[in-house]
Amino acid sequence: MMTMTTPSIGFLGTGLMGEPMALNLLAAGFPVFAWNRSPEKVGAITAAGGVACSTPAEAASSADVLIGMLSDGPISDAVLFGDGDSDHGQGAIDALAPGSGLIVMSSVPVETAIRQAQRCAERDVAYLDAPVSGGRKGAIKATLAIMVGGEANTFEAYQAVLSAMGRPVHVGPAGTGQQTKLANQMIVASTIAAVAEALLFAERGGADPAKVRDALAGGFADSPILRQHGQRMIDEDYAPGGPAKYQLKDTRTALARAEALGLELPVARVADALYAAMVEHGDGELDHSGVMRELRRLNSLTLR
Amino acid sequence: MMTMTTPSIGFLGTGLMGEPMALNLLAAGFPVFAWNRSPEKVGAITAAGGVACSTPAEAASSADVLIGMLSDGPISDAVLFGDGDSDHGQGAIDALAPGSGLIVMSSVPVETAIRQAQRCAERDVAYLDAPVSGGRKGAIKATLAIMVGGEANTFEAYQAVLSAMGRPVHVGPAGTGQQTKLANQMIVASTIAAVAEALLFAERGGADPAKVRDALAGGFADSPILRQHGQRMIDEDYAPGGPAKYQLKDTRTALARAEALGLELPVARVADALYAAMVEHGDGELDHSGVMRELRRLNSLTLR
Repeated sequence: MMTMTTPSIGFLGTGLMGEPMALNLLAAGFPVFAWNRSPEKVGAITAAGGVACSTPAEAASSADVLIGMLSDGPISDAVLFGDGDSDHGQGAIDALAPGSGLIVMSSVPVETAIRQAQRCAERDVAYLDAPVSGGRKGAIKATLAIMVGGEANTFEAYQAVLSAMGRPVHVGPAGTGQQTKLANQMIVASTIAAVAEALLFAERGGADPAKVRDALAGGFADSPILRQHGQRMIDEDYAPGGPAKYQLKDTRTALARAEALGLELPVARVADALYAAMVEHGDGELDHSGVMRELRRLNSLTLR
Repeated sequence: MMTMTTPSIGFLGTGLMGEPMALNLLAAGFPVFAWNRSPEKVGAITAAGGVACSTPAEAASSADVLIGMLSDGPISDAVLFGDGDSDHGQGAIDALAPGSGLIVMSSVPVETAIRQAQRCAERDVAYLDAPVSGGRKGAIKATLAIMVGGEANTFEAYQAVLSAMGRPVHVGPAGTGQQTKLANQMIVASTIAAVAEALLFAERGGADPAKVRDALAGGFADSPILRQHGQRMIDEDYAPGGPAKYQLKDTRTALARAEALGLELPVARVADALYAAMVEHGDGELDHSGVMRELRRLNSLTLR
């Protein structure tokens, strides 16, 4: 695991996020063996010097460390471990040599990450859960926030690999990367709702919301969300961005995890209820900043 | 009002905030006539070239524009308009010449600002409500966010005066400066609570909260509140800062104003309830970031 030569990377899932992440690994000098369910999405990676693989196992068998950027927990378990009604055979994990590593960078449930870490340990494969925040823009610019759970020495071994894609921070044992990603999503969900309430409040009191956003910039109420999502609310431009249905999926996952931990989180609960109502009222495909529309609905105000 | 010469400033209330604001006016070249209830607090201003006045009316009579930085709405009405059981006589307003201006920079209720504007109009005195955010540090560095309500030409006339103390933004008619300050406080209250929930959630899931704060920096969940109030939560250092009892006063005022406007704001309501419980449990003098203690109490966790 603590290989001193440049490790080879197997990369599973080269979609909107995975493709630029794999390209940044290539740019940093790592050999990349890439697989994607739709093979045409590997094109940019082979053009940049990567190797296209026809199965997940093929990518894994060439890899010192295998990275999964697959769409969700069940698909991650299917491709990596052959779980479920999988069309991926026995799972890529069996093609990984003992002493190699697996890094799951998509967002999966905390419990899934903890179980994956256990299954890896049984095979002498090191494991990190390392979900990201920052969107495709952050993936392209290699500025992703990377929240890493797992053993400290595994983090150290793969820190250079992760650093090629963004800014990795080791937050605790396996599962805590996913736990931290949920914490991130809770803050995002609640802050967007709080900004929507404040801008609606200001507007109903006769202030110009665009001027209010400007006035608040630089103070304690300032945030990327006030600047970016606040601007969308002012422009009433709710093209996603981050669709409300995914925001709701995140708050649901976070509240279920909180319940499993015996935690009551009142602000997250209220934010979740707002996004649930938004989705129920047919706005699930809009950007999460469109929660402004749900607030207007709640207050019997005209939707614009 | 649109005087082309440098206007003289009457400055009422030279406490923690008012003193550095008045000093910045002097530094920008404005003559300052200062009054404070406790006269010794005018010392730094006279040392810097200002004139100490023994009554509010004396400061007003020398002023082209009178600035009030008094502690709250009733005291503002008492000193400026002689309302209530005042020991300030008939109020400073009667000593202001027609064509001069009054700028109320402390936080007062929206309704108080609207009424003050009307009473000024009856006397041919221009009025702005211009509350600030940024604390004593912002006052000293002249980087205050200044949220300004009133007539556009009044704002233009006094923009240079306001700019000597920070960054003024005109948000709408009289009262909307105060409305915007409340919107600011709503975002602050809700975001602090959301950050506390997220850090507690992460900690209970086994992550190191200090590492979580670090991992989230630079992403959508980032904010001055995550950085500053989040750090206080991690250090469990709740020396105020902004005492929870004042945070509660702000959310109460905001919710009362929302009710007057017929607005239901669910996130602000839940945040208000958290600060109310925090104050009820005896933590009102702690910094508002101490709402983390209330979350722990709510979840029957040990207070540390």
